[in-house]
Amino acid sequence: MPRILRLAAAQMGPNQRADSREAILARMIALLEGAAQQGAQLVVFPELAFTTFFPRWLLEGAELDGYFEAAMPNPAVQPLFDRARALGIGFYVGYAERTPEGQHFNSAIITGPDGAILGKYRKVHLPGSVEPRASDRFQQLEKRYFEYGDLGFPAFRGPAAWGSPVMGMLICNDRRWPEAWRAYGLQGVELMVMGYNSAAYDPNGGRTEDAGLRTFHSTLAAQANAYMNATWAVSTAKAGDEDGSGLIGGSVIVDPNGLIVAQAKSLGDEVLVADCDLDLCRQGKEKMFNFAAHRRPEHYRRLVDQVGAEPPA
Amino acid sequence: MPRILRLAAAQMGPNQRADSREAILARMIALLEGAAQQGAQLVVFPELAFTTFFPRWLLEGAELDGYFEAAMPNPAVQPLFDRARALGIGFYVGYAERTPEGQHFNSAIITGPDGAILGKYRKVHLPGSVEPRASDRFQQLEKRYFEYGDLGFPAFRGPAAWGSPVMGMLICNDRRWPEAWRAYGLQGVELMVMGYNSAAYDPNGGRTEDAGLRTFHSTLAAQANAYMNATWAVSTAKAGDEDGSGLIGGSVIVDPNGLIVAQAKSLGDEVLVADCDLDLCRQGKEKMFNFAAHRRPEHYRRLVDQVGAEPPA
Repeated sequence: MPRILRLAAAQMGPNQRADSREAILARMIALLEGAAQQGAQLVVFPELAFTTFFPRWLLEGAELDGYFEAAMPNPAVQPLFDRARALGIGFYVGYAERTPEGQHFNSAIITGPDGAILGKYRKVHLPGSVEPRASDRFQQLEKRYFEYGDLGFPAFRGPAAWGSPVMGMLICNDRRWPEAWRAYGLQGVELMVMGYNSAAYDPNGGRTEDAGLRTFHSTLAAQANAYMNATWAVSTAKAGDEDGSGLIGGSVIVDPNGLIVAQAKSLGDEVLVADCDLDLCRQGKEKMFNFAAHRRPEHYRRLVDQVGAEPPA
Repeated sequence: MPRILRLAAAQMGPNQRADSREAILARMIALLEGAAQQGAQLVVFPELAFTTFFPRWLLEGAELDGYFEAAMPNPAVQPLFDRARALGIGFYVGYAERTPEGQHFNSAIITGPDGAILGKYRKVHLPGSVEPRASDRFQQLEKRYFEYGDLGFPAFRGPAAWGSPVMGMLICNDRRWPEAWRAYGLQGVELMVMGYNSAAYDPNGGRTEDAGLRTFHSTLAAQANAYMNATWAVSTAKAGDEDGSGLIGGSVIVDPNGLIVAQAKSLGDEVLVADCDLDLCRQGKEKMFNFAAHRRPEHYRRLVDQVGAEPPA
């Protein structure tokens, strides 16, 4: 029996700092409905989708607290959950999480067609710095506002209505780290789901990377890691100009050969849809990337025994 | 002081089973001289460059033995070593190695400008199978003819005349395995050097991958792994039709952003040259891929604790 999942990437244009939660949520519901009209079964929103990308500012107090969700769902986002359940479609969404114990994470969840939360992930590869750079107008302070994800890379099996795919979640910078993909690859991932907010220039010093190069990097990482783990991948941007700070677009849906099957054309709200034949993962998993036959972990010890680079003398 | 290395990829067209060692060596020397005329300091030849890709056949006895080198160099290949030393340029070359103890490896060495051997590598990721597939005209029997490489991924520092780059070697299928690149990345690699023989269709079953797709895979793996480890990379093919079995071309030189700076146009003998500014690696190594700042090995345990994929129930 064919295992075809109709997947949507719901790229979002910018969320300005002054935008209300209600206005942002209304845009997300419109994207959800647009995807549903095209028959999508799972809709992938970006990282930190409900707010602006607040780690670009040095913040404290009430404004900072207001960017975090103390529960998921909660009354402010409930209409998205309700509409998705009514439409019978699931979604991935990234958000800033504050736990009852006061921990803070850059997190994402996936809901199923019945509205239940199927899986949760907390971003492991936090970019940026703890301390702001005095010379820069825009910061990248994820290491200040979030703790490192403590859930590892927990694959799970999606619902039978989607073909029971083995699913994995990553967030933004994680997609550039092959260790993260391989941790899911070793759980047989068939569909990797990711959202991102990536600055159009490097916010931590230097202006040597422009939006074109950074979009190329984003796409290249999705394509190659999908290929090397024989998995479908969807990578969804929040894009465009947020209060004068540019974010790349370039949302993509990639097949297990690393080929792009759908790609965003804009820096705004935009829905991409593709039919993902999950059994296309089989050739890679059974042959070129048959890990049991070909991996040699006895030579991979450095990957866990060492954190930073140690060049020869 | 700028650290610019002029690098050449010496793509080779096919070596037929009936071709003499002398004829093949003469072509290699012509490629070396062509690279030297363009000022190259290091020339990268393919995997198993001195012979046809013999693992496509089920062989034994004298013919099989004849494909292996009992020493490197040896009288049959000495003219290449002599010519390179006279020109003051180094080279990477892949060959089938038979040790004095009778072990067999798919190996590569790099020589320096003075002709001395700077480094040696034995292929870790052997593709293919031990037993031939009765239904197939062409085989992929690397697991039959070679032992798994036992040297790990040994980076070394190249000579001062080249800018003292941290160098790493891979062979063919290794380039698709991010663990191999990361093992070198964790040694600060600045120049990854690789040769390959990749069938234009999948020799271990199925004809679903054509030469275009397999060339795309080869290029994608070089680009993304160079980017994710902030290193230059050169990947050189033996290409074209060897006794009716096609090999892809697509030799490339890739910069630390994953951008292609030179790419083969043919399936024959062809020299690509590029000036590699080794300090282009610094931005990636100090920021996006500052491993000490951003890697989280506590979440990478599966990569060494597990060989094959273990999907959730």
